[in-house]
Amino acid sequence: MALRLLSEGKYQGTASPAYWNRVGPFGGMTAAMMLNAVLISPQRLGDPVALTVNYAAAMAAAPYQLNTRVVRSSRTTQHWNVELVQEEKIVATATAICALRRETWQHSEVSVPEGLPSAVALSAPTHSHSMPWSRQYDLRPVRVSALSEQQQASLGSTKDPQVPSHAWIRDHPPRPLDYPALASICDTVLPWMFRRRKEIIQMSTVSMSIYFHVSKAELDRVGEQYVYTKSFGQICHAGFMDSQAQIWSQDKVLLATMQQLMWVKE
Amino acid sequence: MALRLLSEGKYQGTASPAYWNRVGPFGGMTAAMMLNAVLISPQRLGDPVALTVNYAAAMAAAPYQLNTRVVRSSRTTQHWNVELVQEEKIVATATAICALRRETWQHSEVSVPEGLPSAVALSAPTHSHSMPWSRQYDLRPVRVSALSEQQQASLGSTKDPQVPSHAWIRDHPPRPLDYPALASICDTVLPWMFRRRKEIIQMSTVSMSIYFHVSKAELDRVGEQYVYTKSFGQICHAGFMDSQAQIWSQDKVLLATMQQLMWVKE
Repeated sequence: MALRLLSEGKYQGTASPAYWNRVGPFGGMTAAMMLNAVLISPQRLGDPVALTVNYAAAMAAAPYQLNTRVVRSSRTTQHWNVELVQEEKIVATATAICALRRETWQHSEVSVPEGLPSAVALSAPTHSHSMPWSRQYDLRPVRVSALSEQQQASLGSTKDPQVPSHAWIRDHPPRPLDYPALASICDTVLPWMFRRRKEIIQMSTVSMSIYFHVSKAELDRVGEQYVYTKSFGQICHAGFMDSQAQIWSQDKVLLATMQQLMWVKE
Repeated sequence: MALRLLSEGKYQGTASPAYWNRVGPFGGMTAAMMLNAVLISPQRLGDPVALTVNYAAAMAAAPYQLNTRVVRSSRTTQHWNVELVQEEKIVATATAICALRRETWQHSEVSVPEGLPSAVALSAPTHSHSMPWSRQYDLRPVRVSALSEQQQASLGSTKDPQVPSHAWIRDHPPRPLDYPALASICDTVLPWMFRRRKEIIQMSTVSMSIYFHVSKAELDRVGEQYVYTKSFGQICHAGFMDSQAQIWSQDKVLLATMQQLMWVKE
């Protein structure tokens, strides 16, 4: 994700083929690249709390330019707009909100299921026949049907139609988790439609919104550990499908929550 | 929400005091105003599928300008950026994605609870001591504790810590539902923290993302009927709280899903 400063707020980079998907880079990588441009900016205030990325066109295997702009700043909050441009056309837009976090009442309405198997108890990925981007991850899906009845029950009531998918993931080779890597991991979750239809359907992300729920210091504590992703969805209608996810640390800290809208090709 | 065309893509309007909140207009109204500017644009393609609004500062009781721009268009999808400006400063930014919907496989992972009371079975709002914006709605929260045990169970397992809030709502006086009105309704849901702490805490929306799951024709079928909102949340941490919602028609069509991040004042 190395970027070269062109002029104030403008950077140039080249997308790594290591993170390629069918057409263009994996969407998580695009999100990471756009957030990275905000994070390296000298005028950035605090840490990211919200990121929305809109995917407007397929990115080409060519250099890209990132145009960043502070839209509005207060003492505690800063709003950014980012454009990803190739050949003078906008390929993706993003908005990011950074803020100074402060101690307040805190509470989580959701939790990590009791019966979740640990990452090391699951098979390592073979990476055969996979897309280049997925080889950059050690992604270990939890095969719910292989678990005990008690474990299955703890992972989501079988009476609930919104059955979630569970996985452990970290970068391969391992490296300390940062905000861009966390944003990218948000886009690795299994679309619920694959499970529901028992087949793989081509789809591409149209828009993804991520909320970050940890400070830089809290994120640094994750280091090279696996993170747990729980994903689910609500609806597929007229060519568009939603997807949602929670990303948790091994220490049961909710790191980020994600919502995305995908375009379904069929 | 009447807008005056200034030049291509630029409009001027004045926020109605009828939709005022503590400071500035109710956030749902701001979302409606920004989406409206896209919808009235002559080059708009299809219907909205995604909208993200970022609230950068409090809006003043003064005229505002909306700057709209088509960022990228394909044959089926169109990406918009919108800025809301007052006194040459950006107050809010939005991205909207419009698209031509098409028939595909469709499925909903979520549903309307069986035991949900109808809107007419609930008390009408008194509107005493309420904020101006809330008087523009006929908002009828479902008081779960007043229901039968069987109804309570159907509205969300009591074993599940993520207990949802339920309400029926329509404009007051009634008028046919459109996309801006639907976007605004997404911001009327009860923040889960009020229920959890049994007190009202001041908070303001920082970012809100809405996915629309119906075509214009499907939305028109709702007309002046009440819609059902189910809301829940995941976490409050370090001054920021998330909230999520589903908006359903009386005919059990999922109209929109929403996710927002709020800044908590305390």
